[in-house]
Amino acid sequence: MTTPEQLNNFSRRIPDGDNLERDVCDTCGFIGYQNPKIVVGAVVRAGDGKLLLCKRSIEPRAGYWTVPAGYLELNEAPDAGAMREAMEEANAHIAIDRVLAIYTIARLSQIQIIYRAALTDPNISAGPESLEVGLFTWDEIPWDDIAFPSVHWALGQYKETIGDASFPPFANP
Amino acid sequence: MTTPEQLNNFSRRIPDGDNLERDVCDTCGFIGYQNPKIVVGAVVRAGDGKLLLCKRSIEPRAGYWTVPAGYLELNEAPDAGAMREAMEEANAHIAIDRVLAIYTIARLSQIQIIYRAALTDPNISAGPESLEVGLFTWDEIPWDDIAFPSVHWALGQYKETIGDASFPPFANP
Repeated sequence: MTTPEQLNNFSRRIPDGDNLERDVCDTCGFIGYQNPKIVVGAVVRAGDGKLLLCKRSIEPRAGYWTVPAGYLELNEAPDAGAMREAMEEANAHIAIDRVLAIYTIARLSQIQIIYRAALTDPNISAGPESLEVGLFTWDEIPWDDIAFPSVHWALGQYKETIGDASFPPFANP
Repeated sequence: MTTPEQLNNFSRRIPDGDNLERDVCDTCGFIGYQNPKIVVGAVVRAGDGKLLLCKRSIEPRAGYWTVPAGYLELNEAPDAGAMREAMEEANAHIAIDRVLAIYTIARLSQIQIIYRAALTDPNISAGPESLEVGLFTWDEIPWDDIAFPSVHWALGQYKETIGDASFPPFANP
C-alpha cells in the first residue's frame, strides 16, 4: 500500500523554528506533522451494577473482550465520542458520569480518555465491530480474555470509584 | 502550498465497513484518516500564588497572553507534554499537580488537556515562541489581552480549585 508520504518528495528533517524532525516535502515545503490519536471509551454500569463488555469482531484482538471505545472523530467532544462508541459497538444508550481515567499508550502515540457511565436502557446488542456483548458481575468478567491492558486498568480503577460521586481522573497504573 | 492529498488521487467517500466519509486514494486504497489534535498545557502557580503567563510571539494571536500550552508530540504523555511546553515557552520548570480541565474546541477538532501545576524554580524567561513571560497576581492578569477563550476558562476554573487537593476535571464552561 502506498502512503501519501511515499508519493511525495518527503525528507526527514527539522523545519525552521522547530526542534524535532518532521516529514518535510522538498518540493513544496509541506510539513507532514504526525500527532497522537485520541481513543475515547467508557466503563458502563447497568442498574444492577453489572458492567458492559463487548467481544471484538475486528483486529487487533478479535475474539477478546473490551469496554466500548474507539477513535475520537473530527469536531467531536470526547464524551460524545464515548457515547457514540457505546452505540456503535453495543447499541447501548449511555449517560456519561465523570472522567474515569486518562491513559497514555506511548508506544502507539495514543491518548485514551475513559469515562464512568451508566446504561440508560437495558437493551443492548452486538454492533458490527462486536461478536457479542454482555453485562457481567465483577466475578463473571472474562478476565483471561480481556483485549488490552488498558481495559484491565479501567475496570480496576472503576471499582475503586464505586460510591464516590467525585474523584480526580486516574492515569496509567 | 500543495498537500499530499492534492498530489494523490483522493476522493471523498465512505470506506467499506465505515460510516463516515474519508479521503480514500482511488489508486492504492490508502485511507487518509484525519484525527483531532491534542493540546496540552498548564496553569502554573508560583510559590507566592502568582500565575505564569506568556505573551505569544507567533500567530495565531501574537502579542496576546496565554498559559504555556501546545501540541502533544508523538509518544509523549500529556503531563510530560505540558512540562515540555512550559520549558519551551517560558524556560519554566514545573511540577504537575492534577488534571484541571479537558476542553473540546470542536471547530478546530482540538482537545485540550490542561493541568494545575507548580513552578519549582522561580527563574523564568521568554522562549522562542514568547515575546515575554511574567508572573501575575489575579488582579494583575492582562484580562483584556488574553489570547484564547480557553485561557480564560482555565484561569477561572483554576481559581475555583485553590485550596482543593482533589477535584474532578472541568470541561468547557
